[in-house]
Amino acid sequence: MSNHRAAIVLLSGGLDSATCLALARQQGFDVYALSFSYGQRHSVELEASRRVAHALGATAHRIANIDLAAFGGSALTDLSIDVPVAAPNAPVDHSEEIPITYVPARNTIFLSYALAWAEVLESDDIFIGVNAVDYSGYPDCRLEFINAFETMANLATRRAVEGAKLHIHAPLMKMSKAQIIEVGVSLGVDYGATISCYQADDQGAACGACDSCRLRREGFLQAGVPDPTLYQG
Amino acid sequence: MSNHRAAIVLLSGGLDSATCLALARQQGFDVYALSFSYGQRHSVELEASRRVAHALGATAHRIANIDLAAFGGSALTDLSIDVPVAAPNAPVDHSEEIPITYVPARNTIFLSYALAWAEVLESDDIFIGVNAVDYSGYPDCRLEFINAFETMANLATRRAVEGAKLHIHAPLMKMSKAQIIEVGVSLGVDYGATISCYQADDQGAACGACDSCRLRREGFLQAGVPDPTLYQG
Repeated sequence: MSNHRAAIVLLSGGLDSATCLALARQQGFDVYALSFSYGQRHSVELEASRRVAHALGATAHRIANIDLAAFGGSALTDLSIDVPVAAPNAPVDHSEEIPITYVPARNTIFLSYALAWAEVLESDDIFIGVNAVDYSGYPDCRLEFINAFETMANLATRRAVEGAKLHIHAPLMKMSKAQIIEVGVSLGVDYGATISCYQADDQGAACGACDSCRLRREGFLQAGVPDPTLYQG
Repeated sequence: MSNHRAAIVLLSGGLDSATCLALARQQGFDVYALSFSYGQRHSVELEASRRVAHALGATAHRIANIDLAAFGGSALTDLSIDVPVAAPNAPVDHSEEIPITYVPARNTIFLSYALAWAEVLESDDIFIGVNAVDYSGYPDCRLEFINAFETMANLATRRAVEGAKLHIHAPLMKMSKAQIIEVGVSLGVDYGATISCYQADDQGAACGACDSCRLRREGFLQAGVPDPTLYQG
């Protein structure tokens, strides 16, 4: 049995994953959106994921609670490590260095959960909004990682043993932030509903200073699209 | 930086993972034992994992809460599916068929968490007590799956990018249940502290009838080792 219309889409509530969800819908998939509560510094991004899933017509949306904070080691889950900030208009660091906001094995864990849900739904398609252009520093955003996960997944499940072939789709992999925004706007994504900031406040207002904010702002500028982001202060 | 003495050991509280932990200790590793609370039908196996970790000299033991039950699809996590039982002395089914106690993507998820902890600890070694002899029906217990996970993991992390090589050890892979028991006994494993039953009662007494119980009983018989298991009734 296969459910060829169903796809799992990893959804953070940020700009990239919202665009990824819209692309999955455009390709005709019924979208089962999957978000994670993993000791993030704030939960406004989970609220954003709910808004995005609803606005873009997801068939279902699940939020799985996971225990990444238990292991520590990242500024995104460990409250004792500061998120680095810079002046709002400082140039974005596109170097290869791995940022302190890297969460150990995050995409491996997220994709593993997506694989579990895909098997239960009899789906053979998983979408993830990783991007190697802006975030080249994250090892688990690279195409070679995605391909290796797909190979592993095709040995991991009952569906695979029975002959199904799972596909991991990473449609944003080679797109710039500006290109992602252009595609999303053409598909009707309301980026005002998304949150990319590493340290948004309780109202979802973005700091404007972290790497994620500056990449996003730069993307809207380059795309010539008005930035709908709510900034703090 | 590397911590060559540290290894993560996946620990269920059952016979196999206890033996795997003992083998990691024998190889000189400081053991960081990792267990999961994932909507199992009972929590006595988590208590068993605590006893085993302590008795075998683990350096640390963490229990991560994960949300497998949210997806359903397995008799081990979904209370609406019965665990199959047979008469206590019925022959064990060693066929290739995938049992209903299969949990979608379970070992993929478990190994992903182990990978996260390994990176935080700067460890390059993960032990998992999978076995392809008795449980050939589980796709994620096969050597080809373990090898593919190792390949993926070596592309997934900051440590990998920095040149470290992660090893997934599956020392029980080709051992029979009787061989596992013989090795464990030689290393001082107290199997009375372990629980293998899919439906042990609140005192940890085993049903004696599920596949796991029957494999275990058969293993003690073949090894010529007195079976220390507490059975119900």
